[in-house]
Amino acid sequence: MSDQKQIHSSSLRTSPLLVSEIGSFHVGGEMLSLHGMPLRERISTNQGAVHRVNPNGEIIAGQMYVQYVKLERPTARWPLLLWHGGGMTGVNWETTPDGRPGWQMFFLRAGLDVYVSDAVERGRASWAPYPEVYADAPYFRTAQEAWEETFRFGPAGSWHRDPASRHPHDGVRFPVDQMEAFMNQFAPRWATNNERTQRAYDALVDKLDGSIILTHSQGGNFGLTAALHAPDRVKAVISLEPSGAPTADGNNAAALRHVPHLFVWGDYLDQHSFWVDSVPKVRRWHDALAAAGTDVEWIDLPARGIKGNSHALMADDNSDDIAMIVLDWLRRRGFAA
Amino acid sequence: MSDQKQIHSSSLRTSPLLVSEIGSFHVGGEMLSLHGMPLRERISTNQGAVHRVNPNGEIIAGQMYVQYVKLERPTARWPLLLWHGGGMTGVNWETTPDGRPGWQMFFLRAGLDVYVSDAVERGRASWAPYPEVYADAPYFRTAQEAWEETFRFGPAGSWHRDPASRHPHDGVRFPVDQMEAFMNQFAPRWATNNERTQRAYDALVDKLDGSIILTHSQGGNFGLTAALHAPDRVKAVISLEPSGAPTADGNNAAALRHVPHLFVWGDYLDQHSFWVDSVPKVRRWHDALAAAGTDVEWIDLPARGIKGNSHALMADDNSDDIAMIVLDWLRRRGFAA
Repeated sequence: MSDQKQIHSSSLRTSPLLVSEIGSFHVGGEMLSLHGMPLRERISTNQGAVHRVNPNGEIIAGQMYVQYVKLERPTARWPLLLWHGGGMTGVNWETTPDGRPGWQMFFLRAGLDVYVSDAVERGRASWAPYPEVYADAPYFRTAQEAWEETFRFGPAGSWHRDPASRHPHDGVRFPVDQMEAFMNQFAPRWATNNERTQRAYDALVDKLDGSIILTHSQGGNFGLTAALHAPDRVKAVISLEPSGAPTADGNNAAALRHVPHLFVWGDYLDQHSFWVDSVPKVRRWHDALAAAGTDVEWIDLPARGIKGNSHALMADDNSDDIAMIVLDWLRRRGFAA
Repeated sequence: MSDQKQIHSSSLRTSPLLVSEIGSFHVGGEMLSLHGMPLRERISTNQGAVHRVNPNGEIIAGQMYVQYVKLERPTARWPLLLWHGGGMTGVNWETTPDGRPGWQMFFLRAGLDVYVSDAVERGRASWAPYPEVYADAPYFRTAQEAWEETFRFGPAGSWHRDPASRHPHDGVRFPVDQMEAFMNQFAPRWATNNERTQRAYDALVDKLDGSIILTHSQGGNFGLTAALHAPDRVKAVISLEPSGAPTADGNNAAALRHVPHLFVWGDYLDQHSFWVDSVPKVRRWHDALAAAGTDVEWIDLPARGIKGNSHALMADDNSDDIAMIVLDWLRRRGFAA
């Protein structure tokens, strides 16, 4: 790496930002009227009186939260949209479990306006009652599911409540002594809100003149599908370990011929059945894009000598290095200065 | 107002920020083990297979989310903590329903580092299952409750789903045509989490060397109580229409003799029974602080000729003017430059 490149890399970690505005909005909400629920009795403050509460009436459901940080002088034409994975919120991009700046800061320092969203049903998007609006009850991810299956911090049977008894994968780059900080970021998830979520993401893309979408995990299918729904507005798609992808159907990928795609994958994928099942489905969409003539890259980090990354690439201790790989990909295509 | 003051006031609305870091953390979470719940069957993606999910195991509960924006060159010694009201999240401070910058931007431009939190149970703090962890089901605020009672946008009977049929108070400063945008910010609330919430707020205060707390509504009692719990760390307390306050008990307010307090109140308080009941309880705490010799100010905006403010002072169309009153109060005490 040249001296100049090293200086630039260092400033991506420490330089201040000149920010014109921090703000937020919601997209996709619609007003619903709830009827027929019984009155409830509530005590709202300590030692307060019991008062009756009528839960019937109008509420909003289906909205998604979008926070933006706009630079005074962005050096990129299109903003970067950061879309989290399942059972998560935009906090994933804001900080790492070991307390370093997240990818939101990294890409702001790289000169892009950044929009971080909380998808329908979680975080600042809020959520709606079930079974009145959502069909079913939510799921609360357990530490074991996260550690042994979804995030691949360790093999089956290696999670224990006692930190001294936890056995992560050899060489894993996730800061396993910060598991509790990572769990603080978890949010309940529903299995019944995919259509609502896609509609809200599509509404966000429609609201902007153009954007680059960067997703993680469950966000992957939403991002790849949003590009398929708006190939003129979505300028590029970066998918960190997407857990799903659109189904290749005839030549549907041809609409994305001019939209560059990047897929990035970590380590231990062959040791966890969820990922053994999931990766080939995504690979088929990659192949359909490639067959359509799309500029598409599939980065297998271990094959490049970058070993030990978990599913939480933006939370691993080399998260800045992974971000730099993404930034270089954007730079080579003119999406970043 | 002098020319110089006007220029300064204008720059508070438009000047860019030099930001050293945007980030976040959680405080107050603890790991719990859930047992004895039946397995569930879930379909995680469209057309996916049914797979079994074990909801038992470790989760985190009781955590609060705190987002900070740190300036490269803050001009105030202590950061400002913005604590939202009930059934709300930190989004209240980030934007207004009519799309203007919120108080987060205002006070950053005024030179203070700003910490915006989502309290336990809402927003990016996440929430925990009931009845396993929380004792009861949450409440979803209806538009009618918000419009006619809590936020005082219009009198009883004046809410209608059809916007053309809504009848707000004469002269109300809330942008009533943006009611849906405001409702997008609502979050479910529990009536059983006051102690968890106070613990997390206290943990935040303990984590910082010193801070100024600015609260709204339900956040009021948490902020006033946090100051009582840590009178050396809390440098000032600003309460926008607190819905509750500590109980004056002997000379408990004496601990706050050196902590300036400001209370700010809007209009129509005598026309809504919730507020007719609530204000005197808060006034008793104000009086106890005053009797203890605390620097305490009670601003009745209509008595100053500022009419039409709803309960949502930071969302009303004169929100910047209200923020300026707060900033002037801080400046006169040396808490802002």
